[in-house]
Order: sequence, then C-alpha cells, then structure tokens
Amino acid sequence: MSEVKKVVLAYSGGLDTSIIAKWLQDEYNCEVVTFTADIGQGEEIEPARAKAQAMGIKEIYIEDLREEFARDFVFPMMRANAIYEGEYRLGTSIARPLISKRLVEIAQETGADAISHGATGKGNDQVRFELNAYSLMPDVKVIAPWREWDLMSREKLMAYAEEHGISIEKKKGKKSPYSMDANLLHISYEGGIIEDPANEPEEDMWLWTVSPENAPDQPTYLDITYEKGDIVAINGEAMSPATVMEYLNKVGGENGIGRDDLVENRFVGMKARGCYETPAGTIMLKAHRAMESITLDRNAAHLKDELMPKYAEMIYNGFWFAPEREMLQAMIDKSQENVSGNVRIKLYKGNVVCVGRTSENSLFDEAIATFEDDGGAYNHKDAEGFIKLNALRLRTAAKKRGK
Amino acid sequence: MSEVKKVVLAYSGGLDTSIIAKWLQDEYNCEVVTFTADIGQGEEIEPARAKAQAMGIKEIYIEDLREEFARDFVFPMMRANAIYEGEYRLGTSIARPLISKRLVEIAQETGADAISHGATGKGNDQVRFELNAYSLMPDVKVIAPWREWDLMSREKLMAYAEEHGISIEKKKGKKSPYSMDANLLHISYEGGIIEDPANEPEEDMWLWTVSPENAPDQPTYLDITYEKGDIVAINGEAMSPATVMEYLNKVGGENGIGRDDLVENRFVGMKARGCYETPAGTIMLKAHRAMESITLDRNAAHLKDELMPKYAEMIYNGFWFAPEREMLQAMIDKSQENVSGNVRIKLYKGNVVCVGRTSENSLFDEAIATFEDDGGAYNHKDAEGFIKLNALRLRTAAKKRGK
Amino acid sequence: MSEVKKVVLAYSGGLDTSIIAKWLQDEYNCEVVTFTADIGQGEEIEPARAKAQAMGIKEIYIEDLREEFARDFVFPMMRANAIYEGEYRLGTSIARPLISKRLVEIAQETGADAISHGATGKGNDQVRFELNAYSLMPDVKVIAPWREWDLMSREKLMAYAEEHGISIEKKKGKKSPYSMDANLLHISYEGGIIEDPANEPEEDMWLWTVSPENAPDQPTYLDITYEKGDIVAINGEAMSPATVMEYLNKVGGENGIGRDDLVENRFVGMKARGCYETPAGTIMLKAHRAMESITLDRNAAHLKDELMPKYAEMIYNGFWFAPEREMLQAMIDKSQENVSGNVRIKLYKGNVVCVGRTSENSLFDEAIATFEDDGGAYNHKDAEGFIKLNALRLRTAAKKRGK
Amino acid sequence: MSEVKKVVLAYSGGLDTSIIAKWLQDEYNCEVVTFTADIGQGEEIEPARAKAQAMGIKEIYIEDLREEFARDFVFPMMRANAIYEGEYRLGTSIARPLISKRLVEIAQETGADAISHGATGKGNDQVRFELNAYSLMPDVKVIAPWREWDLMSREKLMAYAEEHGISIEKKKGKKSPYSMDANLLHISYEGGIIEDPANEPEEDMWLWTVSPENAPDQPTYLDITYEKGDIVAINGEAMSPATVMEYLNKVGGENGIGRDDLVENRFVGMKARGCYETPAGTIMLKAHRAMESITLDRNAAHLKDELMPKYAEMIYNGFWFAPEREMLQAMIDKSQENVSGNVRIKLYKGNVVCVGRTSENSLFDEAIATFEDDGGAYNHKDAEGFIKLNALRLRTAAKKRGK
Repeated sequence: MSEVKKVVLAYSGGLDTSIIAKWLQDEYNCEVVTFTADIGQGEEIEPARAKAQAMGIKEIYIEDLREEFARDFVFPMMRANAIYEGEYRLGTSIARPLISKRLVEIAQETGADAISHGATGKGNDQVRFELNAYSLMPDVKVIAPWREWDLMSREKLMAYAEEHGISIEKKKGKKSPYSMDANLLHISYEGGIIEDPANEPEEDMWLWTVSPENAPDQPTYLDITYEKGDIVAINGEAMSPATVMEYLNKVGGENGIGRDDLVENRFVGMKARGCYETPAGTIMLKAHRAMESITLDRNAAHLKDELMPKYAEMIYNGFWFAPEREMLQAMIDKSQENVSGNVRIKLYKGNVVCVGRTSENSLFDEAIATFEDDGGAYNHKDAEGFIKLNALRLRTAAKKRGK
Repeated sequence: MSEVKKVVLAYSGGLDTSIIAKWLQDEYNCEVVTFTADIGQGEEIEPARAKAQAMGIKEIYIEDLREEFARDFVFPMMRANAIYEGEYRLGTSIARPLISKRLVEIAQETGADAISHGATGKGNDQVRFELNAYSLMPDVKVIAPWREWDLMSREKLMAYAEEHGISIEKKKGKKSPYSMDANLLHISYEGGIIEDPANEPEEDMWLWTVSPENAPDQPTYLDITYEKGDIVAINGEAMSPATVMEYLNKVGGENGIGRDDLVENRFVGMKARGCYETPAGTIMLKAHRAMESITLDRNAAHLKDELMPKYAEMIYNGFWFAPEREMLQAMIDKSQENVSGNVRIKLYKGNVVCVGRTSENSLFDEAIATFEDDGGAYNHKDAEGFIKLNALRLRTAAKKRGK
Repeated sequence: MSEVKKVVLAYSGGLDTSIIAKWLQDEYNCEVVTFTADIGQGEEIEPARAKAQAMGIKEIYIEDLREEFARDFVFPMMRANAIYEGEYRLGTSIARPLISKRLVEIAQETGADAISHGATGKGNDQVRFELNAYSLMPDVKVIAPWREWDLMSREKLMAYAEEHGISIEKKKGKKSPYSMDANLLHISYEGGIIEDPANEPEEDMWLWTVSPENAPDQPTYLDITYEKGDIVAINGEAMSPATVMEYLNKVGGENGIGRDDLVENRFVGMKARGCYETPAGTIMLKAHRAMESITLDRNAAHLKDELMPKYAEMIYNGFWFAPEREMLQAMIDKSQENVSGNVRIKLYKGNVVCVGRTSENSLFDEAIATFEDDGGAYNHKDAEGFIKLNALRLRTAAKKRGK
Repeated sequence: MSEVKKVVLAYSGGLDTSIIAKWLQDEYNCEVVTFTADIGQGEEIEPARAKAQAMGIKEIYIEDLREEFARDFVFPMMRANAIYEGEYRLGTSIARPLISKRLVEIAQETGADAISHGATGKGNDQVRFELNAYSLMPDVKVIAPWREWDLMSREKLMAYAEEHGISIEKKKGKKSPYSMDANLLHISYEGGIIEDPANEPEEDMWLWTVSPENAPDQPTYLDITYEKGDIVAINGEAMSPATVMEYLNKVGGENGIGRDDLVENRFVGMKARGCYETPAGTIMLKAHRAMESITLDRNAAHLKDELMPKYAEMIYNGFWFAPEREMLQAMIDKSQENVSGNVRIKLYKGNVVCVGRTSENSLFDEAIATFEDDGGAYNHKDAEGFIKLNALRLRTAAKKRGK
C-alpha cells in the first residue's frame, strides 16, 4: 500500500463508516479526518462528533449543507427536467458531487493527501465520489475500503467492530433489510427481497410517503412561483431552496407522491433494481415542465428535451464537474431567462396534476390560439404555403421514384 | 379554383363534414367520394352511409380500421416510448397517417384527383393529413375548406346547412363546448374554458375516465405479456392489438388512468392548451419501459431515449411516411428483438405502477447484482481501473490548469 | 396591397435592387430608404449613393460592417466548426442576419414600417432575411418583390428599367452567367451550366482563387494564434477579425484554397447545385480544429461535434436570432475558455495541412502518451478493469442469450 | 495466473508477437494457436507459417480476409460517412472487430479457452480487441502480455528473444522510428518525433502516398458507380469491395491523396498524435457524400449527419458488435436504398474534388431548381406562408417581450 499521511473520510456516524475510520487508522497508520454533512437525510449529524472523538479523531467536520445542496445542485438539475432512463430522478447521483467537493476542500485545508468513502465496488457511488474528486484534486489518493479489504460479510464486519471496540448501536425495532440512502431529494432502497425485479416491495419498506391508498381523500392544491426556472415561493410565501424541498417532501409524502420502482442500468455495467421516494422532486418536475410549457419557446424546449438524456447520464455517471456537463448547464441556464410565473398543482393520492399556469412572460397567445374568430391575428392561408414547402422534398421523392 | 373532377372526403357523418361534402359538390362542381373509418372513436360509422346517400354520394367507403391502426401505427410508436414535449402521448397525431393513406388509396381506386378534410387552418391536423398524403401521392390536389371558404362562424355554417337541406341532428343533452377528437389511443379536448392555460377543466369534461377520486378503492393488477416489444396477451389471454387497446382503455378508464392536461407547441407555431384521456397508452408506456428495463441493453436504451424526442416530433409534425421516420423505426425495431416477457402492473386511482418484471431474455444478473457474496462473479478490483481511466482526461485537465 | 409608408431596402446599387427601389416607390407609393453595406463583397459601396439619389431617395445608409460581420457572426460560428451537410461553409447564410438586423434598426430609426430585399421566392435567402427580421421586429411588414411582381424574366426587367429611366451599367467584359453572392467569408456561384449537378464548372468561373494547378510550387506556412477560440494574430502580428479574414482570403486564394462544389438541400425543400470559394473559412476551420485538438477535453469536443450539424442547420435555415441558436452558442462559447495557443498551417496547391500545434493550455500529456517508459504516469493495469467493466453488459447479454 | 490450456494469438510473424508466442508457452505452459490474416497490410503472411512452426506451434491459421474486411466492415462504415473527431478516418479501429471475430471463432474451433494480442496497455487497440471478443465469447480469457509482463523496453525484449532463440530479422535499411499499423483502409504512424504535436513529420515517414509536391502535374479523373451506398464499379469496370480499395489506394497514393495529421482523444483517456495515410478512404468519403447529395432526402441526410459522430465513436471505442452500433447500422442501411448512380471525381496533388453526379434516383429536380422560368413547377407564393409560420413563434416571443 502506498503511503498515506492523512485521509478525509465521508463519515455518517454509522457502523460501516466507523469501522472504516478504524480500519484506515490501522491499515494505513494515518490520521483520519471525519466529514459528516447534513444534506437532508433526516438524521441528526451532531452525534457523529462523539463517535469520532471516541475513536481518537482530532479533526472533525460537521456541516449543514442543505441550502448549498438544494441551490447549487438540485435546482440546476431541475432546470433540465432531468430523468435517467425515463424514470429515475437522480436522487443519489446529484448528492455525490457536493460530498466530493467538500472532501477535497477539507483535504486541502487540513493538508490531507487522501480521501475515503464507504461505497462498494459494485455500485455507481464509488464512481461518482471518485470522478468528481479527481476533477477537483487530480492527485488525491482515493481509498475505497470495500474494494480493498476482506471484510466482505456482515459477520466479518461485526467481528471487526467488536474486536476494535466500535460500539454497535442497536436501532429500535428490527433492522431494515434494505440498503438505503437519503438526502433532500430522495430516499432509496436496494437489496433484500426487492433485489429480484419480479418482487413487489412490501408496504412497510416505504418510509417517506404514505401509500396512495392511505393518503387523504381530499386533494391538496399548491401555488408554485418560479423565477428564471427556480422555485422561489409556494402558496405566496417566499422560500429558500432547501425550504422549498423540505416543504414539498412533507406535503408530497402526505399525499402519496413520488414512489418509483424500477430497474436501472449502472455505469459499472450491471442492471439493478431500485425503489425510490422522491416527493419534492416529482412535484418539481411536473411543475417545472408546466412553467416551461407557456414560457419557453418550442425549439428551445425541444433542444432541451433532446439533450436531457445525455445530461442526466452525465450526472448519473459522476461527471458533474466535467466540462461537458458545464457546457450543457450553460445552455440550459440560458434557456431559463423567461421561465418565471405561477403554476397551480393538485396533489391527490399519488397523482400530481398541473391545473393552471400563468406568467407575465407567457408565449401563449390567446388571440392566435382561439377557436373563435381571431380578427386576422393568424392568416389561415399561410398554412397552405407552409405545408406545400414542407412537403416539397417528399413530393419530389415520390414523383421521381413512382411511389 | 383549379379544376377538380372527383374528390375523396374524410367524412365523419357529422355536421361539419356533411357541409363540406355539399360545399365541395357546389363549389368545385365535382363528384364526392366519402370515406368513413372506425379507428376506435367509439361512435357508429354505419349511419354515415345513409347521410352520404342523402346527399347523392355514389361512392361510399365505410371501413373498420381498428386492427390496422393499432398494429401498424400505435404499436410501432409504442416501441419507441414516444412522448411529445415530455407529456403528450400523440393520440391524434398517430391516427392521421392512416386516414391519409386510405384517402390516397381510395383516390387511386376511384380515379379521384383530389382529397379533402375538415381540419382547420390553425391546427396540426391539416399538416399531418396533407404531408402524409403528398408523401404517398405527390400530385394529389388537397382541398382544405376551412382555409378556403368564408363559413368561419357557427352561425354561417348553420345557415349554410339549412339552406342546403343538411339535417342538423340534435345530440342528446347539451352540446359539448369542447373541440374533441377520439380514436383507440385517446380522446382530446380543446377550446371552451380550457383554451386559457390558467383554467382547471371541469370534471364533467372528461368522458373516458372516472376521476381518481371516483375510482375503486381496490387496486387492479394486470399481467402483460410482450413479444418483441409488442403486447400479445393480458392476464394470460392472447389478444389482437386492437383488443389489447380496447381492454386497457376500459380497465384504465375505470381506474382513473390517463388524464393529461398540458400546453403544447404546434408545428404551425403557436402554443395551445389540450386535455387528453389516454388510458391504454398510459399503461402501455409504463409497461413497455418496464419490459425494456430488464431486456434491453443499457446503451441501446440510451440511444433510444436520446432519439425519442426527435421521433415523437416527426409523428407530431406529420412526417410518418417520411424517410427519416422510417430510418428511426428501423433502428427502434432492431432494438426490440429481445423485448419479450411479462410485466405486472398495478392500477389504482390514477396511478400506474410496475410491481414486477420477468423474462427469459432478462439481462438482470442476480449473481452479479447481489449485495451478498457473489462468489467472484464480479471483481471489485476492476472498478478501480474503470474509474482511473474514466478520470484520466479530467485529472489531466485539472493538473495542467492548476484547478 | 396593405398600406406602407416607408420601406428600408437592402440595396446593392446594382440593376436588380435599383429596379426594386423604383418599383417600391411606384407600386406602394411609399418612401424608400436604401441601405448598402460593405461586408467584404469586394465592391465599392459608395457609388450606391449617387444611384439612390438619382432615384430621389432621401434617406441613404451606407455602412462598413466588415468588423461587426467578422467579429459577431463569422467568428462565433467558427468556434462551432460549423459545416452544413458535411461540405457547405455557410458563407451566404451567416451574412443574412447582420443585414436583417441593420434593416430593422434603420426601420426603427427612420420610422419605417416595412423592409424589402431582392431575394427570390425559391431560395434560402428570403427565409433568412425575413425570419431574422421578424425575430427582431415582429410587426415589420416585409416586401419581397420577387414573390409579388410579374417581372420574372430578364427581358421584362430590362424593359422596366428602360421605361423608368434606370441606368443599365454595362460591366466590362461579358456578363457572368452565374448568380453570385460575396462577402468576407465567401463568393458563391449558382445557375448557368452548373445548375446541372453533372457538369464540371469551367475554370474561368472561379474569381477569388487560382486553381491548384496554377498555385505556386512552393508551400506557404502560417502561424496562427488563438485566444478563447478566436484568431487574434497571424505570423505574430495582431489582427482584427476582419483583417484576419482579408489576409487569409488573400493568401488562401493565392494557394488555390477553398473551392467547394456541391449539391445542397435548401430549407424551402429543393436540392440545388452550388459552387463556392471560401479561402479564409477553409483555413480557419482546419486551424480551429487543430487548436481544439490539444486544448479541448474529449467529451467537450464530442458534444460539440454531435451538436454541430444542428447548429449549422439553424444558421442555414435562418434562425440566427432564435433562442435555440443562442442556447447552443452559450454552450459552444463555454467550451472555448481554454482554446488558446498556436497552430502552424501549411498551404500548398489547394491543400491545407496542420503541421504543428502548441498551447500553454495543452491537454496533451507527453509523460502519459509516450511509447517510451513513462515512469509510472500511467498504470497499464488500470486498462484491464476499464475494459472489463465496459464489457460487462456485453458479456452478460452474450451469456444470457447463448450468443 | 489462472489456468489456461490453449490460447489463440493474433500473430503477425514479426518479432513482438513471436516473443509473445514464446512467452505464452513459457509463462502459461499452454498450447499456442497462431492466427495470421491478410487484411491488406501489404506484407506477405505466408512466411508467418515457418516462424510459427519453428516455435513448435501446431495449429497455424493463415487467412486472406481482405474481401470480408472490405465488404462487411469498411463498406458499411463508409455508408455512414464516418469520421472521428472531424478528421480521423478510423482505419485501425475498423480492422479490430474482424480480427477479434476470427480469434474467437478459431478459439471455438480449436477448443481454446483464451486469446491473446500484442496491443499495449495505453492504446485503443487492446480495448477494441477485447470488447469485441467479449461480445462474441463472453467467457473467453484474454491475455494481454503488454499489461502483464516486465519486458517493457526494447532492450529487455531483445534479450528475451536472444535467450529464447527467436530470430531477429534485420529489415533492409534503417528501422522505422514510428509505430505503424496497416490494412486496406490505411497505414498509421505514431511515436518518434511526431509524438510531440508541435513537430511536422518528415517527408520520408509517409510510405503509401507521394507528397502533393511530387504528384503528377496532370489530374486523374475517376468515374465511380454506386449501388445502395456501396461502390460496385470504377471507370465502368465492376470490382469487388477489396479490389475497389486496392485500386483507389493505388491511384490515390499516386496523386498524393489521403494524408492526415492530427491529435486524437483515445478511449483510455489521453490525447495522442497520429499521422495516417488513407487514400481509398479519403476518395470514398468524398464520393459517397456526393452520391448522397443527389439521391438522399434532406432530412434523412441530416439525421445521418447528427448521428455520425456517435457512430464513429462506437467504432473508435471498440463497440462494433454492440447492440447500439447494430441499431445505428440498421438505420443507416435503411437510408441507402436509393443511393445508386455515378460520381465523377478529380484527383490532383492531394485534392479530391467531385465534379459531377448523376443518378436515375436523383432527387435534384431541374424544373424546380432552375433560375429560369419553371412553368409553375414551384409556386413562389408558397414561400410567404412557409416563412410566416416558421416565424410565428419568434414573432410571438418578440411581441410579448417587447424585444
């Protein structure tokens, strides 16, 4: 193993990353700096401090990154209407670059030469952590214990913890059989019985949303205000990006909004089943498309739609800090200059429906669109020439080839 | 006006196209051939015969095209997961090429030199009818009365009908204030109070679906069987394409599935509000993506996703019989060779959820995907090299530019 | 004809636009403002003043727009490596938006309500002039005499000119049988014997370049300096954009560089043969790609390449001032931040070859690329994991399907 | 090292792959099968037999694959007008899948469990060999000695050869300082002084073409006949695909055609300088585009152009046998149904010019395109409606936003 003096670890405070912290100290004989962030996962982060101290960690970073996460990562992505493979809302993917960015910045502040994370060797997260980190600190050494050590079973991990005096906190109730990840945008579930794409998840798996069946019998209406493609207020109340997301997660979750159940293609080459709850994200996508539907030019919208899958793939694969993502972002942001106004959304038992859109920048022109007499705003005769010239190449081909 | 001897009219049997039939006889002093098709709009077409005869029409075509429509138009489009502008399921767009094709074929059979339709000068349908017709019969003369005549108000039309002895059938109940269009794939609503994108439609507008609120409190499960990208059976019962759609429309409608409310960008350049009910189409899209999720290679799926918006635009704009659509179809069909298997779908109050997928062609590899010990099926060490070389260009840039 | 009070005419000073000026005065009984611009076509524009005055024109605009044309139109387009249909360098297309912009600005300055141009009803230029004008002044009235009048033959034009006292200047030598258009970027030839795609043009058609056969037997070398994607100096001498182009046209023309002979697809739907001389543009494309080859990230370059055809089509079709072009430009410009350095170009009898590239921003890493011992800069072992995971989906498919 | 019983080696007969053959026998203690193919590299392959026999090889495959290479690999690629990064003609890339295919087939015939090649760990070829092989035989073991052994310098290789009795043939004259690769499509040069992108190659590097300076002073004209996108005859003489390429290489080389000098982005993440001679390929690209220019529909051509970079990238990266390449090929082949006719090409001192195109399938319509009176084939008035509706969205935006 190459020599490492100090490593910054993405530390959740849980068992696995506590074991990693210990293992790094032992195997690499190096100092460990822990970094624990609140990105909206819904768990207290302050307890991580005591746990880190108990392992002799001296440099402990505990940070609330919710606003930065919402403002600089989720919101820009939402401007693109990003969806991976038609269904996945990129909840895990979009959180990784921020963690990488802070890991690297802390490494630079503390003089560390390495970073470490608890992602496994089969998943996308290792790729996202590392590509984003290398983009920002090209010579950083990355230690991915799951690719190195031999603690590949739960039993070995437990034995290691016991042997090294790491406290194994008993959670209340039975342990979840799923591998989970949460942040402001979503909570995800993998493994257990849902590993098999044939199996329907059990109702008690879902933690953030009630089922549509158990949601209220009365709909909830929301008035959402956009400025330049970003939500700035809900029901007339100005909100910060993180507040917007927390609010929408709450009201969405209460109405059974945002469950996704899918099989996705990982960057490392395998298919994997995932279940996700993305209440705020589901509402935001619907609302943003509705806002764009009256404020965005047709060809601008189509250009965005054609490039969206590529943009989503970049985020999914871990290329947030790559120049190609930044290029597409420049294009997307340019398109949002007039995406301002109000959208009225109805939530009801899993359904998100847009029932109204208004904007001072609206490109909907009632005078032209009307079925009634338009007073000459639109000349029907123009359509003939339009069709004739659009048809010219097709008619020429048909004539020339006796079709 | 140029000379026309015989014209084939797309004839619904309703008031407007009856007026057109009369107007064509009078203005062009030509023979009129009527063509009335059942494409699943849910109205009897046989009554059109007597109405046409009453106007002295001698050549009357009345045809049931439901199977051809489902098999040769809707199903190929579904293979592409086509959606226009993220939301519109192309229900009207996909019906037009078939009507154009038959109009042209009948013109050739009957020696007609012109075709005519009842689409207005502001909409997409005129473009779709005419582009598709020109592609198949380049020298056909197209008569679009709504772009030519001066009967631009309801009053003038009524006066014309009365004057020319065209019977104005009173429908039961009050006349719908909406402009509607229906076929196996959908029913659409435009005009009236929903012309303004700010207004929520009234519940009694919707004709095909109950509201989620009024849908049953118990979910409905469907087992859907695919072969090469097409549905061939539901709940174990083999069904023809049109039967599949009729069945899914019924069960979807009962469960409040398939309502869309959106503002779309027309090919002729304006924005327009449309509301749609597409029960079968909504279920088919969800199920097809789920079937592909385990049977389609990642890069094949991504290529399809990147080209889908372009494909949908071609259909929306009326280029079904254009070479570029045929090229994309060849690409899409090539991808469907292994898209066979079963998908389990849950319908509940407007929600369509996939809860299980199985296939003999499944590319999901449990041995590789598992969180448990995989016995060496996947080498975690490979991930390091994979990440390192994916990062190489990013690291080089960061180093060279002192990022 | 709708009422027009004052019209701004794109006026070359030649016979055709002189006739148009007269015709506008007579037919529309309106004031005519003439606008004559030097965009590098190589003809004096000052003589247009006397001609306009002779027709009683009071408001006469004569402007040198060469720098604006090169800086704000040609250079941004060159950053994209834009080529239409693999061969056409967009010489005419890129000049139209500037003319439209000035026509509209002059209309606003002079209180004119209309603009007029001399482009025919079959070509692309009418579309470009008008789309760009409408984008900037949506209510402007456009008068396109070639689509309105009945002076469709040379004889009728001459008769009209004679009748209205328009002097028909005899050019020296025989009149060119070709329709030509020139600006800083190119000169184009259409019509005459080259209308038929089967015919080789005669040598005396070409006006700006010597033939490769007649070019010098010694090569010419150029050192071209780029800053952020734009040429700022040649052979060490700082030059303005227009000067760059004039210099490259001169030296390119002397070396037989930049002849193109092709059949292109017009936006109005027909195929047309065109011959072009684009000396500077040909050199600039080669040099820019070479500059990018060492300074632009791979995926940034590939993203540009994938979108280039769409960008070129937008310019060709007349959508310079459309939001989709502005979005792509934002993306392209973002990519050029580090495209700075030097390129060495060799010109020889029609050939443009890049023989050297250097840059302080170079991403070429000799330590990594070398065939010699790299001292561990690159770990050969990484390649195995990279290949293995790139192959994973392919292997899974092959195994599962017994390929 | 995992156990290997028999390995099929891509064997050129040269020193490096002879050392590999020996090394495989020694290190893996396994049987070696050699496979030597003529794909147009211009060297005798029969001598490889004796050399293999001298090393005790029992199963020796020596095959002439030139026709298969041209017909099933180069020609399909040419239908796509494939170019990587705007300049590289994919000469090496396209040869690898055929070699992989035969390696794997021979492994299956001979019961071998492994294949081996002489590509280094830094290049693209290892990736291409292996991805293509894994696609066809997912469990094949791949041995890449350059990633495994410690013979990383010329001296160590020579010592190994001497020690193991491998004859080191002295080539006539001095050894080329470049790493070269050749087949019917091209010869490539890397390394030596051209490793540095700043250096101009010396004239004596180029082996297949004379310099433009030394090419004949008289042009050469070629008449090239296409059927469905493929060349079937030259100057009226029917030729097989490989014969076409040999002929064009000869005549192209004599006229100084096809030298490329560029810096490319490798799939493994680095930039590398390459020089190439691709005489036939350069002529074929020019001729194919010219043939398409009159026979291919505009939108079909634009769709091809937009997807070409992606298609080229797939080939460059080694995904020939991947489903996404096969999908694009289906689309491309569909487009070529009418790409038949004749193209007249002029070669002169490095220049390839198309001077004439004819086809029974031509979509060029003289009646419509003409500058002269077209007798009403095209209605100039249609252009107005065409422009008006194309402008509608732009005008609406400009009005609404007071632009």
